[in-house]
Amino acid sequence: MKKGNLIIGQSGGPTSVINSSLAGIVETCLQNEDFAHVYGMRFGIEGFLEESFIDFHRVSASVIKRLKGTPGSALGSCRKKLKKEELPDVKEILKKYDIHYFFLIGGNDTMDTIYRVEKYCKEVNYELTCVGIPKTVDNDLYGTDHTPGFPSAARYIAVSVQQAGRLAADMQKVDKYVIFQTIGRDSGWLAAAGALAKTRPEDAPHLIYMPERPLNHDKVLKDVTETIKNIGWCSIVIGEGTLWEDGTPVSAGSARDNFANTEFGAMGGASAAFNLHRLINKETGYRGEFQITESLPMCAIDRASETDLKEAYTCGRTAVEYALQEISGVMISINRLSSEPYRVKYGKFPLAEAAGKAKPLPDNFISSGGNFMTEEFLTYIHPLVGRLDRYGILL
Amino acid sequence: MKKGNLIIGQSGGPTSVINSSLAGIVETCLQNEDFAHVYGMRFGIEGFLEESFIDFHRVSASVIKRLKGTPGSALGSCRKKLKKEELPDVKEILKKYDIHYFFLIGGNDTMDTIYRVEKYCKEVNYELTCVGIPKTVDNDLYGTDHTPGFPSAARYIAVSVQQAGRLAADMQKVDKYVIFQTIGRDSGWLAAAGALAKTRPEDAPHLIYMPERPLNHDKVLKDVTETIKNIGWCSIVIGEGTLWEDGTPVSAGSARDNFANTEFGAMGGASAAFNLHRLINKETGYRGEFQITESLPMCAIDRASETDLKEAYTCGRTAVEYALQEISGVMISINRLSSEPYRVKYGKFPLAEAAGKAKPLPDNFISSGGNFMTEEFLTYIHPLVGRLDRYGILL
Repeated sequence: MKKGNLIIGQSGGPTSVINSSLAGIVETCLQNEDFAHVYGMRFGIEGFLEESFIDFHRVSASVIKRLKGTPGSALGSCRKKLKKEELPDVKEILKKYDIHYFFLIGGNDTMDTIYRVEKYCKEVNYELTCVGIPKTVDNDLYGTDHTPGFPSAARYIAVSVQQAGRLAADMQKVDKYVIFQTIGRDSGWLAAAGALAKTRPEDAPHLIYMPERPLNHDKVLKDVTETIKNIGWCSIVIGEGTLWEDGTPVSAGSARDNFANTEFGAMGGASAAFNLHRLINKETGYRGEFQITESLPMCAIDRASETDLKEAYTCGRTAVEYALQEISGVMISINRLSSEPYRVKYGKFPLAEAAGKAKPLPDNFISSGGNFMTEEFLTYIHPLVGRLDRYGILL
Repeated sequence: MKKGNLIIGQSGGPTSVINSSLAGIVETCLQNEDFAHVYGMRFGIEGFLEESFIDFHRVSASVIKRLKGTPGSALGSCRKKLKKEELPDVKEILKKYDIHYFFLIGGNDTMDTIYRVEKYCKEVNYELTCVGIPKTVDNDLYGTDHTPGFPSAARYIAVSVQQAGRLAADMQKVDKYVIFQTIGRDSGWLAAAGALAKTRPEDAPHLIYMPERPLNHDKVLKDVTETIKNIGWCSIVIGEGTLWEDGTPVSAGSARDNFANTEFGAMGGASAAFNLHRLINKETGYRGEFQITESLPMCAIDRASETDLKEAYTCGRTAVEYALQEISGVMISINRLSSEPYRVKYGKFPLAEAAGKAKPLPDNFISSGGNFMTEEFLTYIHPLVGRLDRYGILL
C-alpha cells in the first residue's frame, strides 16, 4: 500500500552538492515506489505557501541523474522565516495534497522551520513525518561531524588561496601581500579551510584571521610585516565576520558611513578584506591586493569535493530510509568513526537540539597565536576536501 | 658549433600558461643543443641587473616538464621599467655571460623593454637576437589575434559568471542582482569573456559593462530594473576600468577620499563592483552581492584552456626557431586562419610596432546598446576558451 505523499524543499544559500542530496531523496523515493506523489516545493517554504509544486514522477530520469553534478538549488531557494500565523496555512496545504512526509534540505534556520512545522502538526493532530537534511557551507550545524556543502566550498577556498599564493610569490617584487576574504558569517570554518593550501612553511597562507579570535591592530601589522621580512610576501585569509578587539567588525572599518555599518554589513560584511588592505597599505606602505569571491565557493561544481558529493547523496537516501521507518523530528547526521582511514556512519540528531544553534570552531583547531590552524584541524579537514595538487615551482 | 648563450625572463602579471611558454623555449633549446648555456633571469629584468640567473642545464627534466601544468611565473616576475641609464649595464652583463639571445615573455611593456634593449645593443654593436613571447590576460597586445594567457583567464571568468548565475537564479527571492568585476585595466576583453556563460536568454550574464563604453547612471538603473522585471534577477559583469560618461572611473565612485582616488585606483580600481552595487542598492532598494576575484583568473590552472596551454608552448618553441634563424626584433604572433574549424599559424610581428600599444576591443564585438557582446565576438572567443559545461537546472 502506498504511503501518503512526500514533499521536499531546499532552503538558504545553495551549495555545490545540495542537488546531490535532492537526487538521493528523489531516486530513493522513486525506486521504492512507496509514495504516490513525490513533490518538490519551488523556492522553499515561500513556494510551498503558494502551492508552487513539482511532481517528480513527471521529471525525466535523465534530469534527476544530472542533478548530482549540478550546483545550486534546482528547486529554487529562499530565506523566509515562517511566521507563527502561517502554520495553520502550512497544515491546510499539507492536508489538501495528502502530504505526510516533509523534508527540507538546509542549515540552522531551516532545521528550525521543520521543527516548528512538526511541532504544530503534532499539536493539531496532523500526522507528519519530518526529516531535515543538513546543508551549509558554513559548517556550523550542530549535531553532525560536518555539513554537506562545506567540504566543496572549503576546496574552492583552499585552491584559490593556493593559486593566489603561487602568483603572489612570483610577484613579490611588486606586491607584498594578498588578502582573501571568505564567507562564513560569524563562523571561521571556511577561513580555516585556507590552511589546506599550505604544504611548505613558505606557502600561502601565512595568516588566518577568523571571527573566533578578535584582532589587535598592532599585532596584525606585526604579523604581516614579519612575514614579509621572513618570506618576502604575505598571504592572509580573513573570515568576513572577523572583529577587532573592541568588538567592531573589520568590515565596518573606518569608513563609518551609514551604508558600511548597516546595509553593507548585512550583505555579508563584504569589506573586511578591503578594510584590512587599507590598514596594511596605509601603515606599512606596501602594495597588495584583496579578493572577495563572496558566494562563488557555494556553486563551483568543478571544484567540488568527491567525498562531499557522495555524502550529500547518502544523506538524502538516509532521510528516506528513516522516513519509511516513520522516524520524525530528526536531522540526518554524519558521524565520523575515524580520520585515517576516513570512515563515517550516518545517523540522526533531534531537530529540537539542532535548530537555531551554531557550532563554533573548537579551540583545539586554532593555533595558540590565534592566527593559524592546528594539526588537529588539518586531520579533521583533509579527508573531507582531499589533497590538492601541488603548484610549487619558483625556480 | 655552439652559438652564444641564451637568456629568458618572465615579466608582468603571471598567467596560467606563462610557464608553458617557458617550457616550450627551454625544451626546444635543450633538445637542439645549440646553446652552451640557457639561462633564466629571476624576477625579470630586476633579477637580470642583479645577475640572479638560473642555468637550465642544471634543472631536472622532470621539473621542466612539470612547468607546463604549473601556473604563475616560475622564474619570478617584476614590473620594472628599465631606465635609459641602465642600458649600458644590461649590455655589460650580456657580454660578461656571453649572452647573444635575449627572450622575454610578457605584454606591451615587456615588448617595449626588449625593443629598447635590442635598439641599444645595435647602437653599441653588441650582437643580440631579441625575441618577445606574447603574454597577457588582458588580450590587448597588438599584432596577434589573441595573447596566450587570455583564453585561460577568460575561461575562469566565464565559469565563475555561469556558476554565480546558477546561484543567483536559485536565490532570486532573496537577492536580485550579482555583480562580477573583472581585471583588464582599460580594456574590456576579459569583461567581454563573461558572455560565454550564456547559453539561453535567461542565463547570466545579462549586462556587460566595459571600459570601451562609458556608463550613464540612468541607463544602468534602467538596464538593471528591466532585467529584474523580465527575468527575476540580474547578472552584471563589469571591467575594473569602466568609466561614467563624465570620465570618472566607476571605481572612484562617490567615496571621494584620498585613498579611493589615488592608491586604491592604482591598485586595480578594485571598487568598480562595490560602487555599482552601492548605486543599485541605494536607488532601487534591491539586495545583491558583488564579487572581486582580482588576480585569481591569472593563476587558476585547473580552469585553464587546453588551446591556450598548447598555444603558449608553441609560441615558446617558435621563438627558438626564429632565434636560430637569427631573426631579431620580433614578437611571436598567433594568426588565425579560420574559426570553424579553428586553425592558426604562428608568425612574427615587429617589436617596434607592438611595444607600448594596446589593442582595443573592436566595435563589431560590442552590441549596439553598448552593454553586451555580439555574435562576432562569440565566434572569435569560443575556439579559444572551449565550450563550458551547462549547469542549467532550475526545475
